[in-house]
Amino acid sequence: MVYSVIGTGGVGGYFGGCLARAGREVHFLLHKDYDFVRRHGLQVNSWKGDFHLDRVNAYDNSAAMPRSDVVIVALKSVNNPLLRELLPPLLKPGTLVLIIENGIGVEAQVQAMFPQALLAAGLAYAGSSKTRPGVIDHQDLGKLTVAPYTPGAALRAAEVVRDFVEAGIPADSAEYLEARWKKQVWNMPFNGMTVALNTSTAALIAHPATAALIRAQMLEVIAAAQALGVKNIDESYADRMLETTAGMTPYAPSMKVDHDLGRPMEIGSIYTEALRQAREAGCPMLRLEMLEAELRFIENQSSMPGNRPRPRIGNPHRA
Amino acid sequence: MVYSVIGTGGVGGYFGGCLARAGREVHFLLHKDYDFVRRHGLQVNSWKGDFHLDRVNAYDNSAAMPRSDVVIVALKSVNNPLLRELLPPLLKPGTLVLIIENGIGVEAQVQAMFPQALLAAGLAYAGSSKTRPGVIDHQDLGKLTVAPYTPGAALRAAEVVRDFVEAGIPADSAEYLEARWKKQVWNMPFNGMTVALNTSTAALIAHPATAALIRAQMLEVIAAAQALGVKNIDESYADRMLETTAGMTPYAPSMKVDHDLGRPMEIGSIYTEALRQAREAGCPMLRLEMLEAELRFIENQSSMPGNRPRPRIGNPHRA
Repeated sequence: MVYSVIGTGGVGGYFGGCLARAGREVHFLLHKDYDFVRRHGLQVNSWKGDFHLDRVNAYDNSAAMPRSDVVIVALKSVNNPLLRELLPPLLKPGTLVLIIENGIGVEAQVQAMFPQALLAAGLAYAGSSKTRPGVIDHQDLGKLTVAPYTPGAALRAAEVVRDFVEAGIPADSAEYLEARWKKQVWNMPFNGMTVALNTSTAALIAHPATAALIRAQMLEVIAAAQALGVKNIDESYADRMLETTAGMTPYAPSMKVDHDLGRPMEIGSIYTEALRQAREAGCPMLRLEMLEAELRFIENQSSMPGNRPRPRIGNPHRA
Repeated sequence: MVYSVIGTGGVGGYFGGCLARAGREVHFLLHKDYDFVRRHGLQVNSWKGDFHLDRVNAYDNSAAMPRSDVVIVALKSVNNPLLRELLPPLLKPGTLVLIIENGIGVEAQVQAMFPQALLAAGLAYAGSSKTRPGVIDHQDLGKLTVAPYTPGAALRAAEVVRDFVEAGIPADSAEYLEARWKKQVWNMPFNGMTVALNTSTAALIAHPATAALIRAQMLEVIAAAQALGVKNIDESYADRMLETTAGMTPYAPSMKVDHDLGRPMEIGSIYTEALRQAREAGCPMLRLEMLEAELRFIENQSSMPGNRPRPRIGNPHRA
């Protein structure tokens, strides 16, 4: 199988890098790092063991890339409109587009552009970011869940899971809605709250007021998911997520990293669309609606230079 | 009538100062400013006209003050425990204790200390703060509503209203619960949100996301007030408050000033007790509970030096 990766950052670089190391044919689309990676290769610093790819199939233009069996899309969801131009050269009949992004509604968004494409969601449970040109810093976890979205994507999705497992990445399949909403249970509280309060997941859990708030927000997501037909989820999932988080090496959620680095936040996919669906299902998430409003305000203030104290770069607890 | 003022800050200094200018006998308890005011008097800079009191009945110790017909308590509610010592020397049969503070439950708190005292709530609609020793800066509005709390306080409260009106201060009487909760409609959203987002009332209203959030928070207060038996309040009150705020000279709510100056915030009286009563009445204010949690977190972070960027002092929009 021929793999392509659109978006070679913390997520695309780590998962694509593992596949390449395992001998798979992987083609990487790069942007700012193209020259560096073409010359120096890709370095992956992982808690599971560092490795370096000397020769990388690197491109700065998707038109030059081969049609692929699997296209891993690991962009920030705010950049999905770019797929209209980036994706067509890579597609052939049967190509699986595996969308490893945060939030709700990203598959529907890509389907609207490419109604014929086979789509699957990829849920990355990994603390991984690109810290310097050509260097991926993989700090924690590393699991991938693949959830077929389009009817007919299941077979190819299973092959992908098998390839990932062979490449040393814990991977499994799951039902689409359940997979996407379970990830939201963690993403909706922690991504926004670390930005709103300019803090870390560990500090939020350490204070009783915010710990209770985070749990109440998780229960809002769980109630909405249930209203939207997600099975196999109940209140106990919130407690499991809180325990997992307490046991993690503290790291900044992606939205906190984005905000600290002055990049746009994924408010639309992590909040807006999820909140809309929940409200439509008669189960509005009031606290998370409030958090979205705070984030929209912060986003707007940050766009006015000098109007807000510059937050710390990165996470003070990062090892 | 003999008046005493406990807490000669923006509120106590302005209202007490107006009474003294009008020829009333007013005794002021001062703390840090005692020496300055005894020597230089009290300066009131008001948008309604500046004035200076050359001779001020200033005290640094309430034991030296005369028993009074009216004691104006204009402390920060967090300092109410001090009343246990400050108040007894001023009380005589029939003394009205007029509590001009923010929030819910402050009269009950004082009543628990002095079960026999006649109590009334004072609702200050005024932008006023002490900017330097002995200098009160009165920037906007200036109305006082007096709401009898104890049965039997109504007559004395009416006399106080008359004295205030004669001193040039717009004043009226109102029903207790209604008066306290109407003020909460403004206080609960704006005090906390300006701290949580480190911003001004004007900026919150200017952004559609926070404007809608502020209005939703106001509706939470109105619904709780209705559940607690407050009459003469409905959704239209929120819109009137928003219009009034849009027309005000932008100024920082008291909690924002307190936080910026490193003083404790009045979270207990403005949030905790009000939220408890609303929940007990079966009408929890979910968004404002979330705001309280954010404020508790911020308060805790601020108490750890270097842990949070020092906010701007005061309000950037202040004239």
